Amino acid sequence: MDILKIQKQLEKFADDRNWDKFHNPKNLAMALSVEASELVEIFQWLTPEQSAGIMNSNEGEHVKEEIADVLIYLIRLADKLDINLADAVAEKIVKNAEKHLIKN
Amino acid sequence: MDILKIQKQLEKFADDRNWDKFHNPKNLAMALSVEASELVEIFQWLTPEQSAGIMNSNEGEHVKEEIADVLIYLIRLADKLDINLADAVAEKIVKNAEKHLIKN
Amino acid sequence: MDILKIQKQLEKFADDRNWDKFHNPKNLAMALSVEASELVEIFQWLTPEQSAGIMNSNEGEHVKEEIADVLIYLIRLADKLDINLADAVAEKIVKNAEKHLIKN
Amino acid sequence: MDILKIQKQLEKFADDRNWDKFHNPKNLAMALSVEASELVEIFQWLTPEQSAGIMNSNEGEHVKEEIADVLIYLIRLADKLDINLADAVAEKIVKNAEKHLIKN
Repeated sequence: MDILKIQKQLEKFADDRNWDKFHNPKNLAMALSVEASELVEIFQWLTPEQSAGIMNSNEGEHVKEEIADVLIYLIRLADKLDINLADAVAEKIVKNAEKHLIKN
Repeated sequence: MDILKIQKQLEKFADDRNWDKFHNPKNLAMALSVEASELVEIFQWLTPEQSAGIMNSNEGEHVKEEIADVLIYLIRLADKLDINLADAVAEKIVKNAEKHLIKN
Repeated sequence: MDILKIQKQLEKFADDRNWDKFHNPKNLAMALSVEASELVEIFQWLTPEQSAGIMNSNEGEHVKEEIADVLIYLIRLADKLDINLADAVAEKIVKNAEKHLIKN
Repeated sequence: MDILKIQKQLEKFADDRNWDKFHNPKNLAMALSVEASELVEIFQWLTPEQSAGIMNSNEGEHVKEEIADVLIYLIRLADKLDINLADAVAEKIVKNAEKHLIKN
């Protein structure tokens, strides 16, 4: 995934609509969490088993769109904070591995 | 960002810890929203202006880690649902552009 | 507020619609957080100052409804878990006072 | 539950700590959603069946505290917005009944 290219697209998208003034990190974090909850909403009354088959239901496209919305705000927020997402993920996976050691 | 490579890493991470049984879409969506809220928590009492300077504060590393956690669960969830994240984002940006037309 | 009376109403509401099977604590906690995010969504692009005047805007009724939705799920969840809300709040206020001592 | 009395307590609590300046509706809505997610976090990896027995686990007290935190912020927010919680809930239950008619 070409994060930099998407960030340029999102920046232009916001600038074209005069939305940049709303895109401070506090507001973007809120918007990200709201989109995450819209994703949760799809699953809230399903059993875990039903959730596993969601893509074959008529909610499949909806799930895909909400996941995209979360990622779009995350990519935009990372741009505003000058965080390299690939590096952040790589570092966190190492940290998580140290925190949760494999039990034999 | 090499999503496929990260997905392989996360799959191995879960398998090594016998966590795959917990990773149904319902639970992963919940975990994603919880991480998003941990990000929000950092910003909740800040002014928008203070939030813009967060990376120069002693919360900068914390922000980076929470953003990574959100993305890790998103990448894992997309793997479980067989959703191509780059395609999902590209399609949603087109859809958003149609929804929010530029006003001249 | 007569919590017990509301709990009876909500129980009957769920029973009448055969929804009780969905109302386990996990699902109710998810629904509660989704409603909380619908409240957040109203405020996400507002300045703190604008948020203070929300009840005089055309979003006032919407805010009231989302707050009611959060409280309805909270009251229902407390019923399912047999938690006395008044006691829980009283105990937590004492605990918070011990945690956050007043500085002179 | 004596909402008015709790609101007086919470107002004094905030004033004693010079926190009132942080308590605009936007920030309080964020804090409410963060507490709701801390509640969700307790349930995220549990099965629905396990969630039903949470109060008999060593997480029971934790659940009670997080529920109290959600309610505390909700009561504080309602005070700031001058919303009568009992009225809001009563009106919403009527509205929900009209929206979700009982099927015979």
